[in-house]
Amino acid sequence: MKRVVLALLVAAVLGTTATARAPHRKIVIPDTREFKVLKCDFHVHTLFSDGWVWPAVRVQEAANEGLDAIAITDHIEHRPWQHLVKGDHNKAHDVAMGKERDEQFLMPGEEVLVIRGAEVSRDMPPGHWNAIFTRDNNPLETESYRDAFDEARRQGAFLFWSHPGWSSQAPNETIWYPEHEKLWKQGYMMGIEVFNPFDGYYPEAFRWALDKNLTIFCNTDTHWPMDQHYDYEAGEHRPVTLVLAREKTEEGIREALEARRTAAFAEDLIIGREEVVKPLFEAMLTVDYLHWEGGKAFIVLKNNSSLPIMLKKAPGSEHLVYKRRFIVRPGEEFKLPIAGLGGFDMATAQVLDLNFFVDNFYVDAPEVPLRYCFRIERP
Amino acid sequence: MKRVVLALLVAAVLGTTATARAPHRKIVIPDTREFKVLKCDFHVHTLFSDGWVWPAVRVQEAANEGLDAIAITDHIEHRPWQHLVKGDHNKAHDVAMGKERDEQFLMPGEEVLVIRGAEVSRDMPPGHWNAIFTRDNNPLETESYRDAFDEARRQGAFLFWSHPGWSSQAPNETIWYPEHEKLWKQGYMMGIEVFNPFDGYYPEAFRWALDKNLTIFCNTDTHWPMDQHYDYEAGEHRPVTLVLAREKTEEGIREALEARRTAAFAEDLIIGREEVVKPLFEAMLTVDYLHWEGGKAFIVLKNNSSLPIMLKKAPGSEHLVYKRRFIVRPGEEFKLPIAGLGGFDMATAQVLDLNFFVDNFYVDAPEVPLRYCFRIERP
Amino acid sequence: MKRVVLALLVAAVLGTTATARAPHRKIVIPDTREFKVLKCDFHVHTLFSDGWVWPAVRVQEAANEGLDAIAITDHIEHRPWQHLVKGDHNKAHDVAMGKERDEQFLMPGEEVLVIRGAEVSRDMPPGHWNAIFTRDNNPLETESYRDAFDEARRQGAFLFWSHPGWSSQAPNETIWYPEHEKLWKQGYMMGIEVFNPFDGYYPEAFRWALDKNLTIFCNTDTHWPMDQHYDYEAGEHRPVTLVLAREKTEEGIREALEARRTAAFAEDLIIGREEVVKPLFEAMLTVDYLHWEGGKAFIVLKNNSSLPIMLKKAPGSEHLVYKRRFIVRPGEEFKLPIAGLGGFDMATAQVLDLNFFVDNFYVDAPEVPLRYCFRIERP
Amino acid sequence: MKRVVLALLVAAVLGTTATARAPHRKIVIPDTREFKVLKCDFHVHTLFSDGWVWPAVRVQEAANEGLDAIAITDHIEHRPWQHLVKGDHNKAHDVAMGKERDEQFLMPGEEVLVIRGAEVSRDMPPGHWNAIFTRDNNPLETESYRDAFDEARRQGAFLFWSHPGWSSQAPNETIWYPEHEKLWKQGYMMGIEVFNPFDGYYPEAFRWALDKNLTIFCNTDTHWPMDQHYDYEAGEHRPVTLVLAREKTEEGIREALEARRTAAFAEDLIIGREEVVKPLFEAMLTVDYLHWEGGKAFIVLKNNSSLPIMLKKAPGSEHLVYKRRFIVRPGEEFKLPIAGLGGFDMATAQVLDLNFFVDNFYVDAPEVPLRYCFRIERP
Repeated sequence: MKRVVLALLVAAVLGTTATARAPHRKIVIPDTREFKVLKCDFHVHTLFSDGWVWPAVRVQEAANEGLDAIAITDHIEHRPWQHLVKGDHNKAHDVAMGKERDEQFLMPGEEVLVIRGAEVSRDMPPGHWNAIFTRDNNPLETESYRDAFDEARRQGAFLFWSHPGWSSQAPNETIWYPEHEKLWKQGYMMGIEVFNPFDGYYPEAFRWALDKNLTIFCNTDTHWPMDQHYDYEAGEHRPVTLVLAREKTEEGIREALEARRTAAFAEDLIIGREEVVKPLFEAMLTVDYLHWEGGKAFIVLKNNSSLPIMLKKAPGSEHLVYKRRFIVRPGEEFKLPIAGLGGFDMATAQVLDLNFFVDNFYVDAPEVPLRYCFRIERP
Repeated sequence: MKRVVLALLVAAVLGTTATARAPHRKIVIPDTREFKVLKCDFHVHTLFSDGWVWPAVRVQEAANEGLDAIAITDHIEHRPWQHLVKGDHNKAHDVAMGKERDEQFLMPGEEVLVIRGAEVSRDMPPGHWNAIFTRDNNPLETESYRDAFDEARRQGAFLFWSHPGWSSQAPNETIWYPEHEKLWKQGYMMGIEVFNPFDGYYPEAFRWALDKNLTIFCNTDTHWPMDQHYDYEAGEHRPVTLVLAREKTEEGIREALEARRTAAFAEDLIIGREEVVKPLFEAMLTVDYLHWEGGKAFIVLKNNSSLPIMLKKAPGSEHLVYKRRFIVRPGEEFKLPIAGLGGFDMATAQVLDLNFFVDNFYVDAPEVPLRYCFRIERP
Repeated sequence: MKRVVLALLVAAVLGTTATARAPHRKIVIPDTREFKVLKCDFHVHTLFSDGWVWPAVRVQEAANEGLDAIAITDHIEHRPWQHLVKGDHNKAHDVAMGKERDEQFLMPGEEVLVIRGAEVSRDMPPGHWNAIFTRDNNPLETESYRDAFDEARRQGAFLFWSHPGWSSQAPNETIWYPEHEKLWKQGYMMGIEVFNPFDGYYPEAFRWALDKNLTIFCNTDTHWPMDQHYDYEAGEHRPVTLVLAREKTEEGIREALEARRTAAFAEDLIIGREEVVKPLFEAMLTVDYLHWEGGKAFIVLKNNSSLPIMLKKAPGSEHLVYKRRFIVRPGEEFKLPIAGLGGFDMATAQVLDLNFFVDNFYVDAPEVPLRYCFRIERP
Repeated sequence: MKRVVLALLVAAVLGTTATARAPHRKIVIPDTREFKVLKCDFHVHTLFSDGWVWPAVRVQEAANEGLDAIAITDHIEHRPWQHLVKGDHNKAHDVAMGKERDEQFLMPGEEVLVIRGAEVSRDMPPGHWNAIFTRDNNPLETESYRDAFDEARRQGAFLFWSHPGWSSQAPNETIWYPEHEKLWKQGYMMGIEVFNPFDGYYPEAFRWALDKNLTIFCNTDTHWPMDQHYDYEAGEHRPVTLVLAREKTEEGIREALEARRTAAFAEDLIIGREEVVKPLFEAMLTVDYLHWEGGKAFIVLKNNSSLPIMLKKAPGSEHLVYKRRFIVRPGEEFKLPIAGLGGFDMATAQVLDLNFFVDNFYVDAPEVPLRYCFRIERP
């Protein structure tokens, strides 16, 4: 008999576990008072369509960056590796969920939810659409995209328009075609990507999301190993959809998507509805310390997140002197002295209203910053 | 007819090209006066055995780190993904060399040689062995490892013993079994890994390499995406075999391996024969500037490589005063003042002999440092 | 006799030379076709006013970041350390230029020009003003700021308004007072800081620089050790004034300032006149490679600088398909595929006009991006 | 009257507060079960001797790196800046403790103890000696070093021999002169630096510390701004003396120094007595998770510190299979699978003894690693 791979190989395979969990890769966004903030990437490719990465690796990459959930959404219509990589449209998800996953990828206690999905990939219009929370991807392989969308809805999937501004399908402008109007009116279009690395931030899509009550998405659409796209050494992170959920479960995510409680985080930007972005901001930048004795005061602002927060003095605080423009870096504590101006007497005042524009938090299209007032009360 | 993936998708696929060539990932080792110094990894796994990565990605990872050559050496005997990933023992290499490679992975002018190889994986003894420069891996699937080795030799392959100190096969000590003695005497064993991340540096193997005239190898044996193993953010690099070759071709590498002109570079260590390590050192650390006026002198040492160089004063320079121990960091210029001692008159001297031990360059087992003298002549 | 510090202490002091020239601290901006691009910081404080740093250290910090010139501009009117640190208004400059400087701070061949200067620091208006290229700072200590300005002009100094938008003097808006109008009309105001870390980018100042033909400045106004302000680990750099000079000498800088050939570089922004910013851009982002066979084409864009370059497709290229928005990172090579659209036949075309907005290069106030066309000709 | 620096300048000065507290500069070493682990640097220079840095900046640099205490120990005998920087031998300490310190340097809650000290700097023998916990440095300016030492003892100071292996005073070997023997016998020599960047690790000094019951010190002896010495970008830290104290006070440190409860941390090395190093190791590397079901087991080792921990299998575990050599990086969690060997049945065993050498923790001179056994009990 052939003497080959013996029992010790079990130990060997375990021994291949990768361990370089470089801590600065983790995306840190704190929970809001009311919700868990889940970091999700609902658009990821593998070797089961035209990606170059094994499904299980997608799970580990997600763990590296501290993600809560991913959706593997391989193209239904485009599978260039099919002559080598076998399996139907559900295989990528099954492999990612396979038993080797627990042993190999995740540290005890870590959990990355893997949501079943697929990308229905057609010419524009309607372009590419992601269906997530599908139960069986195989029936989505249909002649007409409408049949695929109907099937997805039948399965209870959540449908969104991917990369509306992708240059290959929208080379000069991002267009809302009559087909999109129809799909939206008929309830097919539930969300839209306002950011996707294929041509970046789409301000028009953000406009439409606000006007037409669509769920905001921001995903990687990654085809490569993640570290080929993002330069972690320089502090870069993958774009993610921030989901304000009641719990870290598929149901929790689903409920939040339907309630439109999402925001985009990409390239140091937060993009979303004010009612979502404001509580995010309040969790991310906190007043950690107040000193106010007589006429002298300062606060310490703490950035609890992975992105720099860019502040500019806004109207409403003309009676106070404080820095008109500054950046609080990820993790940084920033000491901000405050003085009174003109007739305003800091020594007797009871309240200081510090008004700011948050320049990298957009709450309206295309680039309208969040406005926020820190109200400081005398201790 | 189904309206699906149109011509623009060509542009789309091109558009997936990853671009994050973080410059500090590159391994920099300058050429010696006589030879090109090729950075090579002769032991790499893919999804065609028990790796988790597509062959083409191995090429791009290598380009990222500035490698000159890799050998994809999937196990002949162990292919856990075989139910999903189809192809014979040559397929990984063919896929890595496929035409998509040129367009996708490499910048114009970049070239990563991909050498055909395989890992013959048996219990200890003889353990796992790599055959590189094979022409057809399929006949290596044999009952007896000897038949596989014979076939490899018939094809003109280069055979070396992989990870002799791997804990799964050498749990407490690294052993030279009678089988190894026999294989060596019969000319099968041409090289040996003195470093492999499966349990690291094997001083015994280095000893054997020196005593038995074996080619020194140092490879990754990687199964995961490379960035899961190495924390580039912290300045880490993959281990590589440094090959002092006359030209960057498969033939050039082959000739150098046969001439034993290799050294190991791993974890800030250089390990090899003195006749290889010394010219490497001379290329890596150069005297870039000399100031010597009257009795006052200093030199500037420039580290032209990616690894720190650790120097300690060695006997032979008792008449001179200079730092007894210091580190020249990667890329750093280091100013070293020199003074005379006792009766030694710097003002009239013609020559300064600065003797050093290079603490992280081992030229004999287990940890004997290179000794080097910088002879400084009055300009 | 007291046996104390002997001759060897000379070697000892030399031995204190700092050596951590971390290479990613260097600011890299290539020369334009016509000019040397000097990286200058014309506003720096030391212990001879209210800074916390010794003048000589300012020189070394500048060398670390690859600067060509600094001006030490201590306050004439504000010297809180005067009870401990002795010397007149010229002392800081003299100490920075002292003989220990050559031996201690700079590597052979490195040169940092140190320009004599001072900050005349008054209430607003006119606020704080820097005089550089003074010959003797002591006569600038006058009752009336006008006398100080007159003296500076008599010495042939170059005068500019510092941090016009500093919150302590312009708490809510940046104001051009009648005094400024008068000083400008009378030729005192030769330049203005459009960026200074005290409250950052001042768009109004940029507007005035353009409208009133003022030289653009961008300086650190640093009081602390530089590494306390800038997080080099995260890729940050100090703000600098880019000077397009004919030669690296005080005269060369002087001539360029008078010719208004400067731009601001701060926080990944380039701000300046189009005639300065455009040649900078052409040097910083180059087409390093062109592939164009039949109907298939791509170019490789190389970023030769330390700042990311943010590109967005601009009108004029509607017949071409290429990425509508992307970032080329510092040092990165970026492969950009190009396809024809509609009736445009790539296979027979002779010229491709790639139009871009450069989103982080402002050529008009407040935030008007440079527009640039790469004209690609068939090889 | 001269119209100069008005009230707003108060805000201005506050506004100069530096904020770049780059988080990876912090040195993290957890407390042991019994003691607080204070990170201390007892040898620091300023402009009040031959340093280039203001005393207050030394406090902020210490805060940046998370230090608990520093001693400013300017040379009594060597003050090259004396013509410019005024004040007696106590001035540096007084300035560092001045009231501006609280407002400028430290975040609320941060505290860096500043211990008064001085360096008595003579030819070898006896070389340079640090006196810390002095009450008045001025009487230490004496003809004979013995008088200075006597005065220091009269004040209750703690005396230690600095950089015994400094090349300028010990160019070829580190020598214990008869004077040292005498000083030691008479109780003057209470401690010794086993590491100092002036020529690095002194194994002879470590030997003497063990044999003669001296307190182990490891300090920077810094003359420059700290970031000129250490490349934080690459993960470097300053060397520190780790003090195992009952409380973070001057008294707490004093008591620990007298009890010899210190260790050196420099260049990824921990050097000290086994009774100090072992509890440090136990705090730094912990078993965070145990999985043991039937015959299958793994543990998760967590490195809670800023330095990599290098482990090698040691005798005593021949019946178990686990990695023979590996590194747990700072902050990393490392999954270590364990298997049984030969007759050892993992399924019925109750205890697993994992023996290791900790290669970068020296407990005896010159380089004897700590030996440690993790005893794992079945849950």
